[in-house]
Amino acid sequence: MTDFREIGKRLSNWGRWDRDGVKDERGTTNLLTPDRIAQAAQEIVRGQVFDLGIPFGSDGPQRGPFRTNPKLLVSETGEGQRFPGAFRYADDYVFMPLQSASQWDALAHVYYDDLLYNGFPASSITPHGATHCAIDKQAKGITGRGVLIDVARHRGVDWMMPGEVITPEDLDAACEKQGTTVLPGDIVAVRTGWRKKFLDDGDAAAFMAGEPGLGLACCDWLHRHDIAAVCSDNWGVEVSPGEIDGEMMPVHMVLIRDMGMTLGEILDFEELADDCARDGRYSFFLSAPPIKFRRGLGSPTNPLAIK
Amino acid sequence: MTDFREIGKRLSNWGRWDRDGVKDERGTTNLLTPDRIAQAAQEIVRGQVFDLGIPFGSDGPQRGPFRTNPKLLVSETGEGQRFPGAFRYADDYVFMPLQSASQWDALAHVYYDDLLYNGFPASSITPHGATHCAIDKQAKGITGRGVLIDVARHRGVDWMMPGEVITPEDLDAACEKQGTTVLPGDIVAVRTGWRKKFLDDGDAAAFMAGEPGLGLACCDWLHRHDIAAVCSDNWGVEVSPGEIDGEMMPVHMVLIRDMGMTLGEILDFEELADDCARDGRYSFFLSAPPIKFRRGLGSPTNPLAIK
Amino acid sequence: MTDFREIGKRLSNWGRWDRDGVKDERGTTNLLTPDRIAQAAQEIVRGQVFDLGIPFGSDGPQRGPFRTNPKLLVSETGEGQRFPGAFRYADDYVFMPLQSASQWDALAHVYYDDLLYNGFPASSITPHGATHCAIDKQAKGITGRGVLIDVARHRGVDWMMPGEVITPEDLDAACEKQGTTVLPGDIVAVRTGWRKKFLDDGDAAAFMAGEPGLGLACCDWLHRHDIAAVCSDNWGVEVSPGEIDGEMMPVHMVLIRDMGMTLGEILDFEELADDCARDGRYSFFLSAPPIKFRRGLGSPTNPLAIK
Amino acid sequence: MTDFREIGKRLSNWGRWDRDGVKDERGTTNLLTPDRIAQAAQEIVRGQVFDLGIPFGSDGPQRGPFRTNPKLLVSETGEGQRFPGAFRYADDYVFMPLQSASQWDALAHVYYDDLLYNGFPASSITPHGATHCAIDKQAKGITGRGVLIDVARHRGVDWMMPGEVITPEDLDAACEKQGTTVLPGDIVAVRTGWRKKFLDDGDAAAFMAGEPGLGLACCDWLHRHDIAAVCSDNWGVEVSPGEIDGEMMPVHMVLIRDMGMTLGEILDFEELADDCARDGRYSFFLSAPPIKFRRGLGSPTNPLAIK
Repeated sequence: MTDFREIGKRLSNWGRWDRDGVKDERGTTNLLTPDRIAQAAQEIVRGQVFDLGIPFGSDGPQRGPFRTNPKLLVSETGEGQRFPGAFRYADDYVFMPLQSASQWDALAHVYYDDLLYNGFPASSITPHGATHCAIDKQAKGITGRGVLIDVARHRGVDWMMPGEVITPEDLDAACEKQGTTVLPGDIVAVRTGWRKKFLDDGDAAAFMAGEPGLGLACCDWLHRHDIAAVCSDNWGVEVSPGEIDGEMMPVHMVLIRDMGMTLGEILDFEELADDCARDGRYSFFLSAPPIKFRRGLGSPTNPLAIK
Repeated sequence: MTDFREIGKRLSNWGRWDRDGVKDERGTTNLLTPDRIAQAAQEIVRGQVFDLGIPFGSDGPQRGPFRTNPKLLVSETGEGQRFPGAFRYADDYVFMPLQSASQWDALAHVYYDDLLYNGFPASSITPHGATHCAIDKQAKGITGRGVLIDVARHRGVDWMMPGEVITPEDLDAACEKQGTTVLPGDIVAVRTGWRKKFLDDGDAAAFMAGEPGLGLACCDWLHRHDIAAVCSDNWGVEVSPGEIDGEMMPVHMVLIRDMGMTLGEILDFEELADDCARDGRYSFFLSAPPIKFRRGLGSPTNPLAIK
Repeated sequence: MTDFREIGKRLSNWGRWDRDGVKDERGTTNLLTPDRIAQAAQEIVRGQVFDLGIPFGSDGPQRGPFRTNPKLLVSETGEGQRFPGAFRYADDYVFMPLQSASQWDALAHVYYDDLLYNGFPASSITPHGATHCAIDKQAKGITGRGVLIDVARHRGVDWMMPGEVITPEDLDAACEKQGTTVLPGDIVAVRTGWRKKFLDDGDAAAFMAGEPGLGLACCDWLHRHDIAAVCSDNWGVEVSPGEIDGEMMPVHMVLIRDMGMTLGEILDFEELADDCARDGRYSFFLSAPPIKFRRGLGSPTNPLAIK
Repeated sequence: MTDFREIGKRLSNWGRWDRDGVKDERGTTNLLTPDRIAQAAQEIVRGQVFDLGIPFGSDGPQRGPFRTNPKLLVSETGEGQRFPGAFRYADDYVFMPLQSASQWDALAHVYYDDLLYNGFPASSITPHGATHCAIDKQAKGITGRGVLIDVARHRGVDWMMPGEVITPEDLDAACEKQGTTVLPGDIVAVRTGWRKKFLDDGDAAAFMAGEPGLGLACCDWLHRHDIAAVCSDNWGVEVSPGEIDGEMMPVHMVLIRDMGMTLGEILDFEELADDCARDGRYSFFLSAPPIKFRRGLGSPTNPLAIK
């Protein structure tokens, strides 16, 4: 029986980026060093931009009650305004979970045994948000070299199936077939086809009920390659149902809490993947800034991949 | 007496980017061509990142009733959860205007005489949002070469005063002094010091009551230089109170509605400006993706400037 | 083929309660006169209270995207507060449709042919709410003599079926069997069993998909009896699917727009109905104040029936 | 120096309404017995209704960041709808604190020394709301005989001043002057004029900065008279700044946590008070149902006083 705690302990990054007695709250995005970012800029050749965020609207896959799609409400249409002169304006409000549609998880988002990443206590999370490891700690990120690992294409399917596990061997085989070299500090984008399935059938309940995704063994792979962040076209990066009976989301627990790795979820790689298949280049410059929500446990995002 | 309609007509970009009978909804961000983006990547030298978004929280400058600061509410802290196994998670919700804190305006945000940019009717804005010129039309942007024009520093003040007008001559003089060459397709960031004032005194009412900013004559300048987007460290880019009696926000009306220019507001250039002053280079790669709110009239953003 | 417009015209109350050139915005609740309210107080005999509102929470029947259940979020639990002294407090926020769970419809809620009740133009409804016929116009209501007409019990079923029409003859027969005399100015509560079904099976989708309810002919009955308001244990008072092909919610159109009758929806009559069956008295004092939302199109309510 | 804990202990109602081993969660509203409610109905003579709720809108006194006024947003105006037939509808949403505008406090709203009313642990309050002593426990209330004690009128002022303490002697003197007999189980409404001041000057900051109100000694008075609930035209019932240095809201702590008394706040007694002064009768039937928010810490309300 797999013991996720043992894996977490072995791969732990706790203390790795502490400096001068200040405990780190950013985790693996520390690997996004200036040198690597400067190097990543070399990936911008044609200047073509791919937007990896999904639309934020009522047609999204999160239909409650766990989480809901963003609800946009228009406060002003311009009608009925009585300003001096010609000026008319339109405004809107939104109510939404910060983990709605395309999103980055804060490192405070998941924990176990009463400790967050780097040993911060669970009490860091209050009704006012996270006093440690919140999403605004990632304000200068998340940008660097991105690589797409298109596992669905590698397997020759439109989409993988719920519960279908991605292994380190899958990642290596796909990379080899793609001709992709993964470098330290890379941001890895794993394509399972799960977004494509939703685009095809629009079945939100099915989308959320389970998913193909990373198995626990991939934590070692991500650690060995010194990956800065991982993102996916499914809702939770990892496979669901998971590999361990009686434990939920063990990959989250190891990656976020032990390794300090930021996860990106519900992204859309379709256009990008087609382009990569066409030109054979699966690396790009990625810029995916989180919105700086104070003490936020996540953030909506619209990552730009630029080739 | 200045006639903003005459200026708008003269500088109009209506029809300029229509293709094959399809009316354009993106405006000047069409100037962010692949070639220019590829060229802009050359600005990334050191790999240093500056995050230009302000914190999204209750301490922001928008305290209602017109617009309010984002209200973050924690739906899960992990406490009291009874999952199988060790997994605990924390989640949150936000309620906020999309034009809250750091933001991009959609082209549907401002209009006059019942027409939006490119002639779309005002009825395009419904209680469900904008059916034309919404912020999700800018999904692949807003990224390219950015230049900071530090007018406050040029004037030798910590911050300019409310109602203080920035002229084209100011922009030229500041650029010359900085050694900055503005190129077609650039994203211009104008620093007035207004953010610095708020950081110093925390006076939200004063921040919103008026501001230094662009005068109407700058519309010509932005047009002549083929600028792709303009952003500022104040709340409305343009000077307030404005230059025309009886008209509100005339620069918005000309830039957004006639020229189709996307405005970025309430940004923080402090760290970036200090760095530019230090190394004498005021240009950089800018990546500021809007979140893809369907039919949204604006979007929160956290622009990354990379040098 | 039934023409709802003809019925509406025939039963119209437009102008009936205009006074001194002031157009009425309250409709049939004008029938709740002081005399009748004083008389209704005689219904309070035992002093027993029945609360007819349903719980407002995530387990309600409205699961989006049309309308959503209320979302309650706790802003303060008391934890982490650092006040002087011993004081601790807990606070919460809610985001919800005003027509969520138990509710009164404002007279501005439904209209046709560009006119609201009493001839107010459809343009009375703006992004800021209703400038005419809003729910706060009912602030002094809705209170008076209530009568329960238990059609489900009369038919001998736990609940009636979706699309099952209630006729005036049903109302009369049930009243006769119950020994209920309906008086002018009464508030009528029609029990279909639809709430009981939801309590039994918890099937929100089925609850919202259709319902048993009033047929169009009941509009005449309500008019003839000078009823002040009507409420029900289903989501829309009227039968759904409705009786007229190609028209949605014709009973709403006639009752609200033509007769100016306020509708109460998604109430729970279970405990009350059992008590009425037990003691044979189906009349009571009803107090169901709407919350005074300025320009609101509806209001949550928790009606109290007192016997 | 006053010790509020001593007072709380002396006046404690913990255990008083426990039945068959079930711990009570309603407190003093248990005093609203059927007999008393039936008796209270005798107060309805003329059938005139006074609505004591204030308008819920952006012009309310709570302007954040502590609490905010309700924000109403219109989701549908009827425009642009494409239903079969003539039907058009308008809908709206609200985002607001449950303790916004006119409100009842839940018994879980305030506590000290880690215990809520009747000894429930502070951990009863979670991010999901209160598992004990929530507002929906008051679902069948709050209705009975109300008495207005118009202290401002008794003192001959339009409004009392912030920090001005109401004593038991004030209450007795005002009652005597009014000819009001307070009975066990009454709901007491204390008028300070604070609402009138806000109506006159519209100064929200001044309204919230302090207030006249009940002093600590009134807790004894309320206990001695077996009052079922107390409400006021200010925002916190009690005087502010308070009477004890270094303790916030001691009257809340004693009334809510020790006595289990539900407080009603930000009500409007102006029309009612004028009527009482006119006819010399300060008692009435009061019906003020809370909305049944599951686990809610408070509820908006629009109390109806009927004479």
